[in-house]
Amino acid sequence: MTSQVTSVAASLKQARPEAYFLPDNSKKSASATLESLYQIFTVPEAPNSTLGRIEQDISRNLVGFLQEHIVAVEKDLSELEKDFSESSIPNKPMFVSEQAEFLLQKVVAQSVHTSSPSFVGHMTSALPHFMLPLSKIMMALNQNLVKIETSKAFTPLERQVLGMLHRLVYEGNEGFYDAYMHDRHNSLGAFCSGGTIANITALWVARNKLLRPEGEFKGVSHEGMYRALKHYGYDGIAVLVSERGHYSLGKSTDILGIGRADLVSIPTDSENRIDVAKLEEKCRELEKQNIKLMAIIGIAGTTETGTVDSLDLLADVAERENCHFHVDAAWGGPTLFSRKYKDILKGIDRADSVTIDAHKQLYVPMGAGVVVFKDPTTLTNIEHHAEYIIRRGSKDLGSHTIEGSRPGMAMLVHSGLKVIGRQGYELLVDQGLEKARKFAEMIRNDEDFELISKPELNILTYRYVPKTIQALLADASPEQSRAINEVLNRVTKRIQKAQRARGKAFVSRTQLTPVKYDRQATVVFRVVLANPLTTMEILQAVLDEQKELTTTVEAQDIIEELNMLVIQYS
Amino acid sequence: MTSQVTSVAASLKQARPEAYFLPDNSKKSASATLESLYQIFTVPEAPNSTLGRIEQDISRNLVGFLQEHIVAVEKDLSELEKDFSESSIPNKPMFVSEQAEFLLQKVVAQSVHTSSPSFVGHMTSALPHFMLPLSKIMMALNQNLVKIETSKAFTPLERQVLGMLHRLVYEGNEGFYDAYMHDRHNSLGAFCSGGTIANITALWVARNKLLRPEGEFKGVSHEGMYRALKHYGYDGIAVLVSERGHYSLGKSTDILGIGRADLVSIPTDSENRIDVAKLEEKCRELEKQNIKLMAIIGIAGTTETGTVDSLDLLADVAERENCHFHVDAAWGGPTLFSRKYKDILKGIDRADSVTIDAHKQLYVPMGAGVVVFKDPTTLTNIEHHAEYIIRRGSKDLGSHTIEGSRPGMAMLVHSGLKVIGRQGYELLVDQGLEKARKFAEMIRNDEDFELISKPELNILTYRYVPKTIQALLADASPEQSRAINEVLNRVTKRIQKAQRARGKAFVSRTQLTPVKYDRQATVVFRVVLANPLTTMEILQAVLDEQKELTTTVEAQDIIEELNMLVIQYS
Repeated sequence: MTSQVTSVAASLKQARPEAYFLPDNSKKSASATLESLYQIFTVPEAPNSTLGRIEQDISRNLVGFLQEHIVAVEKDLSELEKDFSESSIPNKPMFVSEQAEFLLQKVVAQSVHTSSPSFVGHMTSALPHFMLPLSKIMMALNQNLVKIETSKAFTPLERQVLGMLHRLVYEGNEGFYDAYMHDRHNSLGAFCSGGTIANITALWVARNKLLRPEGEFKGVSHEGMYRALKHYGYDGIAVLVSERGHYSLGKSTDILGIGRADLVSIPTDSENRIDVAKLEEKCRELEKQNIKLMAIIGIAGTTETGTVDSLDLLADVAERENCHFHVDAAWGGPTLFSRKYKDILKGIDRADSVTIDAHKQLYVPMGAGVVVFKDPTTLTNIEHHAEYIIRRGSKDLGSHTIEGSRPGMAMLVHSGLKVIGRQGYELLVDQGLEKARKFAEMIRNDEDFELISKPELNILTYRYVPKTIQALLADASPEQSRAINEVLNRVTKRIQKAQRARGKAFVSRTQLTPVKYDRQATVVFRVVLANPLTTMEILQAVLDEQKELTTTVEAQDIIEELNMLVIQYS
Repeated sequence: MTSQVTSVAASLKQARPEAYFLPDNSKKSASATLESLYQIFTVPEAPNSTLGRIEQDISRNLVGFLQEHIVAVEKDLSELEKDFSESSIPNKPMFVSEQAEFLLQKVVAQSVHTSSPSFVGHMTSALPHFMLPLSKIMMALNQNLVKIETSKAFTPLERQVLGMLHRLVYEGNEGFYDAYMHDRHNSLGAFCSGGTIANITALWVARNKLLRPEGEFKGVSHEGMYRALKHYGYDGIAVLVSERGHYSLGKSTDILGIGRADLVSIPTDSENRIDVAKLEEKCRELEKQNIKLMAIIGIAGTTETGTVDSLDLLADVAERENCHFHVDAAWGGPTLFSRKYKDILKGIDRADSVTIDAHKQLYVPMGAGVVVFKDPTTLTNIEHHAEYIIRRGSKDLGSHTIEGSRPGMAMLVHSGLKVIGRQGYELLVDQGLEKARKFAEMIRNDEDFELISKPELNILTYRYVPKTIQALLADASPEQSRAINEVLNRVTKRIQKAQRARGKAFVSRTQLTPVKYDRQATVVFRVVLANPLTTMEILQAVLDEQKELTTTVEAQDIIEELNMLVIQYS
């Protein structure tokens, strides 16, 4: 494959030199150099130029392009770093063709084939083809959504996208959206670069709402956390979420000055759902400690196991405690499109705010998250203005976002919602969930694998436990069980890395604490079934390769350790 | 122009229906529907499809495409909103061609021509052509830079970009970059979606560094602002910046729990630079109030006037006060490429952190900001990990960023730095600064305009003040001056809006408090000269049109008010 890349590169050298920009070794005058600089802004790539060809290749046959150009076998990172070791910005301009070749050989070739149907380890998946030309329109227009003066129609468009996703979650009536979707004083949500910023936005709003102005006190926004807590007489404010909560929540409480210690982790039950009894216990405890409950967070699709908390029960608790209820549905939000499975998210419409990542299951390119707020006035808690933009009373989107300048990604979400439609997304969701159930069955039926978390949505975890070890584990003492699991953890790690290095398939790995194993740290394979092109045959091949890897030199030493345990404990 | 759009749209209707996705009115079975769903992931747009054609149009002749499709004359926002009023996500999938047509007529047509040479009002400008095909490669690869497993070569590439920009600012030696650029335990900076996130990152780091763990106290990151301030015995922590500081800094102190009140605004001198004497005075004052100085921020290119603070003097103060010194060079950073003008930023290498926006003067599409840190260990103050990614000791970029999942924008910055090179950026900077100086001269030479802030970089502000009024202002009493300026403010606003509505040219407006007018609020036109294609002829036309607009019905009533003042005060 590498030689193919080289030959493509060689043939490109003969192409038109694309001298849009004038390298320094020419003898032209300064004004001519300036002239050639203007050219890079005015003269497009010729179709037969290196970049022109790559573009056409991508347009005509993206799958082929990626297959041909991405080198599957893993290269050592330290090897890759050699191609990116120069720390000086080059003095002389470089031909576009030269850089395009470099990108093809050193970057594209060594990137990750995230859209491959056998890449089932992470939440980054395939894109519908129409997203690519649309992205190009977005880039060509280069709008800045912070304000209308640099985005015009993109402003109502983004508001519509926020409205549509708000309606997906809250199912308000026509009149509600007529009143609020384009209302200059309110906002149904905030468009973000991703779920992390969306979650921070939700908690920022919740914090400022809780510690709002009162009498002489001008609110936490103005006076900061220290004076706010002094004013209200609290010793802290807490956010409660299950131990499966996304790591962005820790970042959020750190950034917001709440403190990671006051993001309180609630244990989960055997199904990886937040234990509501323990949550209520914690609420009482916090009250005694004079720590004010700021928010309860429900997860609609945990990152590691795809589990959905019992949102209705959480809504009850949040109501009783009179605190903000946020649902992190970055992953699972689009399940609402499925008439068959939407009840898994029952209660989500009782949340004060909901995060949904469009670059996950809305199949939009990286960089699009959204947070919607039930009450359109909520975002005024973080409203801000400036003299030259986002003036008071304007409809500039920037007055309700953490970010300032932002691209027009909303256009891509808008197009996804229209071109794929509710029915299309429903199909995507349904087939993913059903594939996950079938894959779980496949794992259960295989004597050498153990399903660790069954799929509620389209994510599941499992590990390799050969039949003999499974028998052993069934009768093992706690101590023996710990010893066996410790070795199994290393087996799982080794297989995952070896499979990734081979480059045919990719599953990720994480560490769980299953109730079944007395909450002992258990390393598992994690599979995310979002790519509609992933077939059951591909999944069978993933298992087969994992099994095969246990017989190769890569895992031999640990497999022998396992065998020793069998002899020892039998 | 509208009719042209319509006719393009009409002709497109005859094109192949692009039935990648199956609309509901077909009679096919569920499995056939699923089949057609797969098609949108596997079958690319045909070259003669609507989207295929748009793409080709953009590739062949971007300038023409934008000129032809963007309707120049401003339409009322309430009019535009009608096209985005539906809040339900459509049930049935829509043909890609139908959506493409909609985008062409309703979104592209009503977007803002940010790359037009006469669009000189904001910091969003033209892009070099090669950025478009490169963006497409980036979108097609859909990497996620939060971790190596979804970005591979993009990880060292991004680290190289951070290294290059670090070196541009700090000019470390080869050995320094060899040691740190790819070091798993350290980071030279963080790649962000924009300058706002970059500034928040810098202040987050500074806050956590100041309120770090000590004895039993586990640090602000863990314990939050309230316990941190109690532990250290401060009544607050302050950030000092000139009154010209970007509004993102207010957001930052709000979000970080510091409070907007403790972002202390220091007055500027007649040149819009921070008054260093007043800054030092404020430092003493804060000490007396037991408010700990956390950071001083210098601005290298204020958003409104393009002014650069005296960074060397600020560095002296920060050193004496032993606080974090951040420079917001979101706009002005690339001035460092200019051998002729880089001294304007003298002292920037003494900053602990520096923000640079790549989507501004590095000419990369929207969505790319960077913050670099002098000391590569600084970012460990905000380091975070998770079980399934960004594990301890990994080189995953996500452990040092506010954002989680992020696109591969670094590839575009990398390409800009290589294809344009130091010399290319130098030319871009130099011609912008020199054009601004010439335009200032043009304004000075015109009897009916008044230059309000002269360009230090490539931004200037001015207003329309007819000759007679200028004479009047020269001898006016303070009271008269206030009255005249009040009317002039309305004139400026009116002209700016009218010019924007006409759609031939665009300048922005802001409100300054010039020393010359006793700090009275003064509305001004603001011009940003970043587009290399903007000529002096275009700038002359901007002035001519503004003058002409004062004679039209749009401004008549206010101009009459002005004339009344002449009669009254003469």
